[in-house]
Amino acid sequence: MSEENKKTAETSEEIKQQEAAAEAVESVHSEKSEQSEAAAEANESSGVTREEELLAQIEQLKAEKEELNNQYLRAHADLQNFRTRVNKEKEQMLKYSSQRAVEALLPVIDNFERAIAASQDAQDTSALKEGIEMVFRQLQQVLEQEGVTVVPGVGEPFDPNMHQAVMQEESSEYESGMIIEEFQKGYKLKDRVIRPSMVKVSS
Amino acid sequence: MSEENKKTAETSEEIKQQEAAAEAVESVHSEKSEQSEAAAEANESSGVTREEELLAQIEQLKAEKEELNNQYLRAHADLQNFRTRVNKEKEQMLKYSSQRAVEALLPVIDNFERAIAASQDAQDTSALKEGIEMVFRQLQQVLEQEGVTVVPGVGEPFDPNMHQAVMQEESSEYESGMIIEEFQKGYKLKDRVIRPSMVKVSS
Repeated sequence: MSEENKKTAETSEEIKQQEAAAEAVESVHSEKSEQSEAAAEANESSGVTREEELLAQIEQLKAEKEELNNQYLRAHADLQNFRTRVNKEKEQMLKYSSQRAVEALLPVIDNFERAIAASQDAQDTSALKEGIEMVFRQLQQVLEQEGVTVVPGVGEPFDPNMHQAVMQEESSEYESGMIIEEFQKGYKLKDRVIRPSMVKVSS
Repeated sequence: MSEENKKTAETSEEIKQQEAAAEAVESVHSEKSEQSEAAAEANESSGVTREEELLAQIEQLKAEKEELNNQYLRAHADLQNFRTRVNKEKEQMLKYSSQRAVEALLPVIDNFERAIAASQDAQDTSALKEGIEMVFRQLQQVLEQEGVTVVPGVGEPFDPNMHQAVMQEESSEYESGMIIEEFQKGYKLKDRVIRPSMVKVSS
């Protein structure tokens, strides 16, 4: 995350540079032209010919054009460098995308191993069951922390965005289009349905 | 993933546009200047005064400067738009970063629930143990698929990059600086150590 912030900081630094460059272009545009016009007026009274004055103005404009062109090319190069950097960052993000979830799973794995090891010489099923249920709750908590929620089931109106109807049946208890049985739980990751539930719907 | 490819395609499309723009600048630079010089020569023999000719050249240069400036400002705006889009993309990537891992965990959760449900009326510990061990292997497989590996332990030379020494002990069996006992497993995600193992090292 801190690396991420650093990247954002670099980015805003670059934006500032870009803005400074844009201002520079503005000043090339206005100040220098004003200068050359002022110079032209001064020259008129000092014996410099009209032709020399115009030629100087042309040289000035050519230099300004050159400067603008360089600034454009730099902006263009900046954009390409930024693209390259962004692509590398995305690759890294994809490569380690599961890190947070995996880190959260490690204590679950530890406890799972302990529960299995303890069960090797245990004859008491209830202690084993308890241990296993604790590990399961811990696993559920990891998923909750990642933003995983269970899709609402029996008693809810059928919604094709999160339910998959595998059976239909008349029901005296429910009005039409309600979920009356769930065969497999569905799950959402934040606002995204990652697995619809498999359900029986009242007709 | 296919969305990712699409983004890359858009990006290269933009690069092409940028390159086309760069070529356009080049042509503003060379062709137009050649044209105005050619025009100047033509004018010399057609009664247009030297002053009019120079003034025309100045107008021409000013127009070219204006065009270059607009191209620079567009490139600058493109860069800012690109940044905005990239930041949105990164946000999305972070938001759903655990999706692949979570999807792979759902069948583990299903089987875990089944094993616990089956254990409610089972008096036979061995059947329960078997079911639980199966779930555990499945969970390990999910982690393997994500690129998680166990840090090498007992018998390996101590490496501060992946081992955390919590005890030291003289050993007749091992030479100095070897891992002689492991208290907690360490894990790597691809090439990155996400949890060093806690070990006892021979002195």
